[in-house]
Order: sequence, then C-alpha cells, then structure tokens
Amino acid sequence: MKTDARLTPLAASLPASVPFVGPEAQERRRGAPFTARLGANENGFGPSPKAIAAMRKAAGDVWMYGDPENHDLRQALAAHHECQPENILVGEGIDALLGYTARLMVGAGDAVVTSAGAYPTFNYHVTGYGGQIHAVPYTGDYEDPERLNAKAREVGAKLIYISNPDNPMGTWHSGAMMKEMVQNVPDGALLLMDEAYIELAPPGTAPVIAATDPRVLRFRTFSKGYGMAGARIGYAIGAAPVIAAFERVRNHFGVNRIAQAGALAALKDDAWLAHVQAEVGAARTRIAEIGAQNGLTALPSATNFVTLDCGSDGAFAGNLMAALLDAGIFVRKPFAAPQDRCVRIGTGPAADLDAFATALPAALVTAKGRALL
Amino acid sequence: MKTDARLTPLAASLPASVPFVGPEAQERRRGAPFTARLGANENGFGPSPKAIAAMRKAAGDVWMYGDPENHDLRQALAAHHECQPENILVGEGIDALLGYTARLMVGAGDAVVTSAGAYPTFNYHVTGYGGQIHAVPYTGDYEDPERLNAKAREVGAKLIYISNPDNPMGTWHSGAMMKEMVQNVPDGALLLMDEAYIELAPPGTAPVIAATDPRVLRFRTFSKGYGMAGARIGYAIGAAPVIAAFERVRNHFGVNRIAQAGALAALKDDAWLAHVQAEVGAARTRIAEIGAQNGLTALPSATNFVTLDCGSDGAFAGNLMAALLDAGIFVRKPFAAPQDRCVRIGTGPAADLDAFATALPAALVTAKGRALL
Repeated sequence: MKTDARLTPLAASLPASVPFVGPEAQERRRGAPFTARLGANENGFGPSPKAIAAMRKAAGDVWMYGDPENHDLRQALAAHHECQPENILVGEGIDALLGYTARLMVGAGDAVVTSAGAYPTFNYHVTGYGGQIHAVPYTGDYEDPERLNAKAREVGAKLIYISNPDNPMGTWHSGAMMKEMVQNVPDGALLLMDEAYIELAPPGTAPVIAATDPRVLRFRTFSKGYGMAGARIGYAIGAAPVIAAFERVRNHFGVNRIAQAGALAALKDDAWLAHVQAEVGAARTRIAEIGAQNGLTALPSATNFVTLDCGSDGAFAGNLMAALLDAGIFVRKPFAAPQDRCVRIGTGPAADLDAFATALPAALVTAKGRALL
Repeated sequence: MKTDARLTPLAASLPASVPFVGPEAQERRRGAPFTARLGANENGFGPSPKAIAAMRKAAGDVWMYGDPENHDLRQALAAHHECQPENILVGEGIDALLGYTARLMVGAGDAVVTSAGAYPTFNYHVTGYGGQIHAVPYTGDYEDPERLNAKAREVGAKLIYISNPDNPMGTWHSGAMMKEMVQNVPDGALLLMDEAYIELAPPGTAPVIAATDPRVLRFRTFSKGYGMAGARIGYAIGAAPVIAAFERVRNHFGVNRIAQAGALAALKDDAWLAHVQAEVGAARTRIAEIGAQNGLTALPSATNFVTLDCGSDGAFAGNLMAALLDAGIFVRKPFAAPQDRCVRIGTGPAADLDAFATALPAALVTAKGRALL
C-alpha cells in the first residue's frame, strides 16, 4: 500500500503494532472459546460486589458525561494515600496515562530507559512519539533499578520505566530498594513506577515516598487487585506540577462514568480486597504446585500471575504455550530472552486452575515432541 | 511556576486548557446541584432500556478487558452502514478519535481548517500536536462547506473539520450539499465530518458516500441519539487504509467492556431510537415556544439542543446564561461572535424544560438589568 501522504512523517514511520492480541481474537481464530482465561493478568475473582452494584446503578445515569475532574474519586484516593487531590491524576487506565506521559515528555530522538522484555505497551507509546528506547537486561529475573538509573544517566534519559512488582516475571523489590532508586534518579529524568500489581504484593513493597516528589510518577489501577480491567480506570500519584501538566493533553471527558462509580465503591471495600488477596495467594501456591508436579519451577510472585520457568529456551516455552492454547488454556509468555524461557499463568478460580492442571502434562509432551523434531 | 525541563518544547508551550468545565464542577462551585441539566448536549431521555440491561449484565464481567478489536460491535456497525468492518474504527468517544486523528495527521505548523466557534475539543487536539488552526466564519448561522474547502485549498490544509448537524448552532446541511463538499475536498486534505447528532436530524441529512472514499472520515457516537455519553464510545467510518492507520497510535484496550455491550444493544433497538427522536423533536418545539414567549428566536435545529437567538450581543447572552446558571438551570452558549449572541438549551424531559420556562423570565430581567449598568 502506498503511504498516505497526509500522515505525519512520524506516523508514516510507525508500524501497525498491536502490543497484545486479545483472547477474544484468539478465540475467533481457533473457532472455540477458551476453557480457562489465564493469560491477560486479569482478576478472575472479580470486583467487589459493592463495585458491581455501584456500576449497575450508574448504568441508569450513563446519559450524563462523567465528571471530567474526577472529583469524588480523586478526593477518595487522596485520603487513601494521605496526599492532596492535586497529587492524583485519574485516567482511562494506566495504558492511557502512559501514553499521555510519553506525549508530554518524549520528542523525536529523546532517550527513554526500560528493561528488555518489560511492558510493551509503554514502548509502543514511546516509539509512537518518536522516542528512542534504551533497554537494559533483567538481572536474574528481576528488573534492575541500579542498571536502569545508570543507563538513564549514560543516555540522558527523559523517562525511566520500572514495574514493581514486575510484569511479566512477577518478581518484586522491597519498598526500601525502590525508595533508593527514586533517590538516585538522574537529574532531568522522570521515573515512572508502574505499581499496577501493588495491592497483591507483600506489605512493604510500596516505597514510602512523598507524593510531592517531582522525580517519580507512580501508576496504579483498578484493573488488577480491584478486578475492573474492563472498566478502564487507573491513576497516577505525583507532584502537583507534574500532575497539572496532563491538563494540557489529556482527554478531559475520557473516563467512563460507570467506571468512576465502580472505582469509588471498590476503593472503599477493604474486606473484598482482602478476600482477593487471599484467593490470589492461594492460587499462586496452587500454580506453583501444578508446575512442580510437572517439572516446572515457579518464580516468586507478588502479582496475580505466576511465571513458570520451563527450564529450556524460548522456543520450547513457545511450543508449550501453543499447546496450552490449543487445549483451550489462554496463557501468555515473556517476549525477551532469557525470560522467554517461561510461561505466565494467571491466578484464577479453582476450576480454571484445574483445567490448566489437566491440560499441562499433555501440552508438555507436545512441546517436548516438537523440540525433538 | 518554572517550566518542567522534562516537557517537550511543544508540551511546554501548551496552555492548561480545558475545552469545557463540567456541570459537576459548576455545582461544586455554586454549592448546590442544578435543577435542570440542559447544557452538555446530553440526552436526558436516556439510553435504550435494553442497553441499560446489557450494561448491567456486563458489569459482572468487568474483570475482563474489553475486546481490543471491538469485533462484535464493528460487525454490527458494518451491517448497519452496509460497509465492511475494515471501514469501522471504534474508540473511546469522538473526542478520543479526533485526538488520534490529529496525532496521525498533524505535525508542527500543519494547517487545519475549521469554523470560528466550532467544536473547541477538536481545536484542543490540533493545537496539542502543534497544528495551526485556520478558522473561517459561519455564513449566517451555518457552517460553510464552500468557505471551508476554499480556505483548505488556500492554506494547504491537512484536515478540514465540519460538524453536520452543527454544534453549537444546531443548524444543518442536506446530505446532497455534504456530498458536494466531499467531492470538492482539496487534494492532500482529509475531511472530518462530525456526525455526532445525525440520528436526530431529518432523513437525508447524512450524505450517501461510499465508506471507502479516502477523502472523508465520518464520526459517529453513542453519546447523543443513543443516550450513552458517560460510556465513552464512538466510531469513525472511512476507507480501510485510513482506518488501519489508527492501529499505529490508538489505545487498543481503551474501550470499556460495559460500553461495548451497551452500544451493541443500543444499536439494535430501533424502537427506542424512534422514541428518543420523537421526544427530542417535541422538546425542540417546546424550547422554541418558551423562547418565543420570552422574545427569543429559536434557530432551526437538527440536534438534541436548540440555540436561542437573544437578539443582542455576546455580553447580553453571557449575562442571561449566568442568570440561568444562578437559577439552577445548566446551559451553555456559543463562544465566537456573532454566534455568541445565543444561548444553547438542551432538549430534556418535560420537568427540566418546565424549570427552564419558569426561570427564564426572571433571568432575562436580570440580564437586561445588567445591560443597563
């Protein structure tokens, strides 16, 4: 196809890249639904029943736009995090907030540092604004704060991305280590700390940092611990001037009114969050056991998924994933070597994990058979 | 405040501009809720009960991300518009789709043509990507297709924006005239035809154009006729290569799952849409009557609002709007002269229009009193 001359040179240079193919698309291609949906880091234990009730109630009010200031939710989040509403930015999911961040901070050729194999949607946004990704390797199966800061210093990065706990590996650092990372952020850089999974991590994983610290922007979401991925609502915590800059580019009326109501109710339901934490913890143990019974080693996880080391290479893990998909078990795997030797299994209800346990032995046989070809 | 050195030069140059202050923010400032919410071009007759039911059902599934391909809705929309799914782009409201369009097409200094006083959110996106707005005046109270195309030819515009029916005036052109406009789009330009209100316009207002025509991108929404403004879901119809370009920049997982379900149900409920069309038509007549009883002239409207000519200048209309707001009637008004001599009143349930009718005489007295100061 001839390139459309109306596209900007940057837009014309971009690939039509989709960071993730959704499970529905895979189901359409295979011609059958999955038995277990364990690949998208969703929370199969679901949102708080109070959040569902609030969303059902709000459905009747959906003729009204949502409040573009997200006032009530920002007030509640500020109280929750013991900061001011001016330190809270609510948006249509972390993906959108990362996109706005790239738009604000990344121009042509600007350096951005992340880990090789970390969140591809972040890279998609950076590349989409003409930024230059500098990826450092994981150390072991951990993102490496020192390496990230050192690379940022070396290349004069505008942005540094880290997720803690990490996706796709599930590993994590202590709050103390993350605080040290913040303190060592090079001048001129903004640290983006993606804490999407933080509610599922051990106490002490979230660093104690002032919300007013201008060196860091922390990203949170209602998609994971709160079980509302389909609602598209997340937030960032940061210094007021950094938060205020988003007024220049954000889609002010972009947050769904039903999501606003659901998030507010979810945030208040500590008991349900505790229930989810317990269920996720039990499911992590179960996945590790299923792995061990089949010769696969679970990495430690502070998330709602468990990454299983298949003990071979990326091709083997890819074959295993393909065999699981064929068997109706939707899972994904890390993209970059050597982490791509793993498959990533979401925590989910017992029936889903049963289906995974049932499918895994034959899938391993298939993968091993392919490895011998 | 010192400018954050991490911002791009473009971002640093942008004002923190909010195209519209929401009614909730105004309610917080005045310390009381509005009696009638008639200012945001919302549809107070609400969405189809079947759409509400579908959204309530989907609330229980919100732990899953929505399908990033929006497959089912695109299929349904393609059938509805007798085109292919490849001609349909679903996104998180027209606002977001206009933003993506600006991102794809508008670079620093690129010329964009619109009408003075037309949709400010479009201008916000264009300016936000460094584009140069060239605004032509309305002709009478109508956007002027010939003038827009001529200006685009003169300045070598990348984009031309027109809304038909028009917001904020409510006026409209025939489909035949819009088709002629498409045929005269200058080479190198893309015509953005915002048809947000099209379901509320007389038959024949939508031009008969091939969905594959590469000169035009048509924007539709579930916010207006379908009454789902808070759900943030809209779509564009265009040539497949133009639609495909959005894969390079869009937030693939950006559409709310509940909104997807609601939109699909709303699209199928022709009877409810007919009900809304009848209610909106009756409310337009009623607003015109209320205006006439108070010496204000209603402009013809093909939308879910009626623009009332106050017969004076922008200052007078501003005072009238302020007096209505003080009286608890949320309305807005056009920004640019001479259209700013008007106030814009949304169609809504009878009780809301009763409240408007009750408040209007005293508000006019107040506005006339201020005019004498």
